Amino acid sequence: MTYCVAIAVDAGLVFAADSRTNAGADNVATYGKLHTFGVDGDRQFIILTSGNLATSQGVLAQMKQDIKNNEEVNLFTVAGVGEAAEYLGRVLRGQQQKHGEAVAQAGFSPDATFIIGGQVGDRSPKLYMVYPQGNFITTSQQTPFLQIGEFKYGKAILDRIIRQEIDLDEAARCALVSVDSTMRSNATVGPPIELLCYERDSLRLDRYLMLREDDDYLLEVKRSWNENIVKAFRALPHFQWDDLPERPRFE
Amino acid sequence: MTYCVAIAVDAGLVFAADSRTNAGADNVATYGKLHTFGVDGDRQFIILTSGNLATSQGVLAQMKQDIKNNEEVNLFTVAGVGEAAEYLGRVLRGQQQKHGEAVAQAGFSPDATFIIGGQVGDRSPKLYMVYPQGNFITTSQQTPFLQIGEFKYGKAILDRIIRQEIDLDEAARCALVSVDSTMRSNATVGPPIELLCYERDSLRLDRYLMLREDDDYLLEVKRSWNENIVKAFRALPHFQWDDLPERPRFE
Repeated sequence: MTYCVAIAVDAGLVFAADSRTNAGADNVATYGKLHTFGVDGDRQFIILTSGNLATSQGVLAQMKQDIKNNEEVNLFTVAGVGEAAEYLGRVLRGQQQKHGEAVAQAGFSPDATFIIGGQVGDRSPKLYMVYPQGNFITTSQQTPFLQIGEFKYGKAILDRIIRQEIDLDEAARCALVSVDSTMRSNATVGPPIELLCYERDSLRLDRYLMLREDDDYLLEVKRSWNENIVKAFRALPHFQWDDLPERPRFE
Repeated sequence: MTYCVAIAVDAGLVFAADSRTNAGADNVATYGKLHTFGVDGDRQFIILTSGNLATSQGVLAQMKQDIKNNEEVNLFTVAGVGEAAEYLGRVLRGQQQKHGEAVAQAGFSPDATFIIGGQVGDRSPKLYMVYPQGNFITTSQQTPFLQIGEFKYGKAILDRIIRQEIDLDEAARCALVSVDSTMRSNATVGPPIELLCYERDSLRLDRYLMLREDDDYLLEVKRSWNENIVKAFRALPHFQWDDLPERPRFE
């Protein structure tokens, strides 16, 4: 299973991903799900992947090949992140179709879902989620984040914290807590956690962390978060049962 | 959509449920999902329902009828909660089969899932989740709670707080926070929230709350929880980006 989240705030973009890939409980592997393509000073793309690993790897390989072959449309020629999402959708559909029938016959789904974000030149930074069908959505003012994979466990904290105006480090800490909550609740989402912050208009990637299970900072965040959540919980107002009517039974 | 949770701690049992029932976005209704059957001083059963509403209501109606008809096996004759779960499973399978084919042909699932908990005489209080197939599971030392319906959003706080030794009110507050988190993240899970605490060996039900959307206590819990979560989040240790290696690109 996978969990990836990307956040768009005024200050830039944040990407986080777990690294667990599994094809059954007896076959647990670790692969990076965060990939970057870019030319410093000109454009940066950050890509998160979930779903069929063969499809994801096929999509990434083809996008690299298209750059090497100087294809007319590739990540280094598109005019913006939206156009990149459109292109990624086409590559994705192609890869799914390639082995789709055989994969489906074996009882697996060839589907993969991607998040692509970044910035091209002086256009605004953007985030898109690209569905297996090749269509895509972006963030909104109300929901300035996108999630793929096992997204439910880590959504509550994003709903509470993420606002367009929070700073990049705060958004990154929130992404980390979101991934940590997911790992706690679903054993098939696992470390290391990859985390990348893209600062608006920098057109460079220089804030990247790969946090292993025993990473001091990660352990400190987990410990602090757990302690403070328990404290927050203990501070909740208590019940006043005495004033309550008895429940009518057998209604 | 539904979210129900039941918790078994040393001090007793806690049950919580939202009340939203929907058959599409234009047909949102409110029905109780928490039902009780009991004889004070002898036995108490608390039942939570999720899934097909016609099936759930059919199951409850038949269990009431079986009591009225003095059937050999009914909730007032079973020797324990495990036997009650076995009986509930049989009634459930029967109800699903009754209209199952017609319901399935119309594109709906007749399936329902139940939680049944309570105590009979001097036996220990117990909790069971009864699947649509009629089989059932109970809690464990490691996971002393059961959830049905939209369970993922509200699981993180249960994982962090619920231990066998916490007191009943603490477990009840945790259930409330769990339901509140779910309502925040999924609009089809909605108030009022029903909450019931069963004190071990009391063989009575006298701690029940129905919390409407504008209930003062619920509003106070939500406000306090949100404030303290944000505070907990702000207290997290910060990143030290300066010491970081730059990410190798195009790997």
